Amino acid sequence: MRIVDLIDKKKQGNELSKDEINYFISSLVNNRLQDYQTSAWLMAVWLRGMSAEETANLTEAMINSGEKIDFGETGRQIFDKHSTGGVGDKVTITLIPLLAAAGIPIAKLSGKGLGHTGGTIDKLESIPNFSCRLTIEELTKQVKEIGVAIGQQTGNLTPADGILYSLRDVTATIDSMPLIASSVVSKKIAAGAGHIILDVKYGSGAFMKTPQDAVELAKLMVSIGKHLNKSIIAVVTSMEEPLGRAVGNSLEIIESIEFLKGNIIKGDIAELTYDFALLALMQTGKFIDEKTAADYLKELIHTGKALEKFKELIIAQGGNAEVINDYSKFPQAQYKIEVKSETNGYVKRIDAYKTAYGCKLLGAGRDKKK
Amino acid sequence: MRIVDLIDKKKQGNELSKDEINYFISSLVNNRLQDYQTSAWLMAVWLRGMSAEETANLTEAMINSGEKIDFGETGRQIFDKHSTGGVGDKVTITLIPLLAAAGIPIAKLSGKGLGHTGGTIDKLESIPNFSCRLTIEELTKQVKEIGVAIGQQTGNLTPADGILYSLRDVTATIDSMPLIASSVVSKKIAAGAGHIILDVKYGSGAFMKTPQDAVELAKLMVSIGKHLNKSIIAVVTSMEEPLGRAVGNSLEIIESIEFLKGNIIKGDIAELTYDFALLALMQTGKFIDEKTAADYLKELIHTGKALEKFKELIIAQGGNAEVINDYSKFPQAQYKIEVKSETNGYVKRIDAYKTAYGCKLLGAGRDKKK
Repeated sequence: MRIVDLIDKKKQGNELSKDEINYFISSLVNNRLQDYQTSAWLMAVWLRGMSAEETANLTEAMINSGEKIDFGETGRQIFDKHSTGGVGDKVTITLIPLLAAAGIPIAKLSGKGLGHTGGTIDKLESIPNFSCRLTIEELTKQVKEIGVAIGQQTGNLTPADGILYSLRDVTATIDSMPLIASSVVSKKIAAGAGHIILDVKYGSGAFMKTPQDAVELAKLMVSIGKHLNKSIIAVVTSMEEPLGRAVGNSLEIIESIEFLKGNIIKGDIAELTYDFALLALMQTGKFIDEKTAADYLKELIHTGKALEKFKELIIAQGGNAEVINDYSKFPQAQYKIEVKSETNGYVKRIDAYKTAYGCKLLGAGRDKKK
Repeated sequence: MRIVDLIDKKKQGNELSKDEINYFISSLVNNRLQDYQTSAWLMAVWLRGMSAEETANLTEAMINSGEKIDFGETGRQIFDKHSTGGVGDKVTITLIPLLAAAGIPIAKLSGKGLGHTGGTIDKLESIPNFSCRLTIEELTKQVKEIGVAIGQQTGNLTPADGILYSLRDVTATIDSMPLIASSVVSKKIAAGAGHIILDVKYGSGAFMKTPQDAVELAKLMVSIGKHLNKSIIAVVTSMEEPLGRAVGNSLEIIESIEFLKGNIIKGDIAELTYDFALLALMQTGKFIDEKTAADYLKELIHTGKALEKFKELIIAQGGNAEVINDYSKFPQAQYKIEVKSETNGYVKRIDAYKTAYGCKLLGAGRDKKK
């Protein structure tokens, strides 16, 4: 097999076989592939696309390109939620303690922020001493002990994705459905997840600009799950351009804590968190009746169990849990605030935090549900 | 301007402006471009194509990417003929002395063989001591003195083409019309040609597989000529798979000498040579009547003037002109002969040379005219 022939085959619009994709990805991670060949192939994929089966094979090859996390018996139940990204997406941080409190094991590997979107890790590490630098052993141990752990993506898992991503970034091949889908899903599966919920965002601030594109990407990722025998649910949500950029890391953690304290009961964050949590309870088979499940989630907030789980998580990962009751324990924030307009009721809630931060906050990011 | 935006623009199928193409090519030759970006762009060009104007702008940018040969007053008259390549294409070597004898100045820069096709230089340098390693000064001086010189392509001319070509070779982007056209035409114009005849071959052994593709490429190159104010004629010819591979370098020189001696008066080589020579006489304005021009060409062969010009060329470039009358002066050939079938009358002519070479020769390459 010659790499140039595989590039040519894709360029001609033909489907690559499983063997060919495996050969390509193993050449990639074994340094037998030149960057200029990889990028020519990426552009051919961008322009010719890939079938659902090809994309599933690519995903599988990327999963097999490096280490995989094995949670043993817990494995099948491990839950993960991924958002295709957006400014001010805080739903991950509210959702994790809530679901962990519900007894759903969660092992999440997050990335640093991409471009203008802050990463979950950047946000969590605004909690003093909180660290996501867990080894795989520490991560699996913590999941077994307290049911939840948040680690940092490592190059040992899906190294093929790391190489492809860095090239896509500089060759205008980021926004390709099969490349996005295989990248997202391979990372989740290699990290041990058996149940995955994907939040596919569309809008001017997202990779997918139209609901049609978002639905197509969502369907593709669900089909990869079927091919690879993993439970994947995809949800398509709208992401409008945020009114301002006052979406600081610790501000978002504070907002999450406020939610877990039961102080935010309406608005997008609360709605989306409950929606995703409900989906997860049904997906993992914890509940079969939606109404009972929804009541149970509210109960976890009202009894403080979700907040307690967040505290447990902070302590397990070395963080100062005092931040929960004393926001001044967060480091003084240095936010770059670009205010675009005066805002509405939702933002006023965030506005209430501004005193603690000494920063003028008039606008904030919003996730609007479709 | 950012390179990634230019890749993206081409990827989306948009036309690049003249400024954008100039920026891309100048970045390429000034090492401000990464190979992986160049190859992603090449693949986008392969898949999206380029308009005639874009291709002409690319050609001009490549011409301006390096040195250009300036023949001064002779410049406008300089003639060059290029073939898009094929096994056993000997017409260049028969044509050059014939046209030079007709008083048409010829400065040809040739490449080494590409893939399975032997280059003109490889063929000529089978003449003992013949050297194509002329400096640009030596080349222009020789053209002024004897009206003909054959040099070797140098990286100083159209360096952009050299970089692009080496990447195209390994990224399955060779067979792109705008990339082939700009590569061929830029080299000819940078080398000083004012009149160019392009022999665009099609067939299983050529880059263009169908006559339709060959015609499209031919039209594109003619349109580049119009944009850049150069006289370009393109001829589409068929190239069948050769019967054998007994197309050795010095064997082809011997065949050319036989033609110049007037011993080959029928068959493809003779026909094609006369056809191209006739076109050149009309293109350069030497003749306006085809019949008179055709008679004149035959005259140049019969009087030995064409052969005499070839001898002059050999001597000027340091070669041993005794080969013309004594084929045993050629180095003993070591041809790799892969015979595919018994052959016809045309090949029997070549067969006659075999004694001088001690190699078994049953098949030979053929150029079939459409």
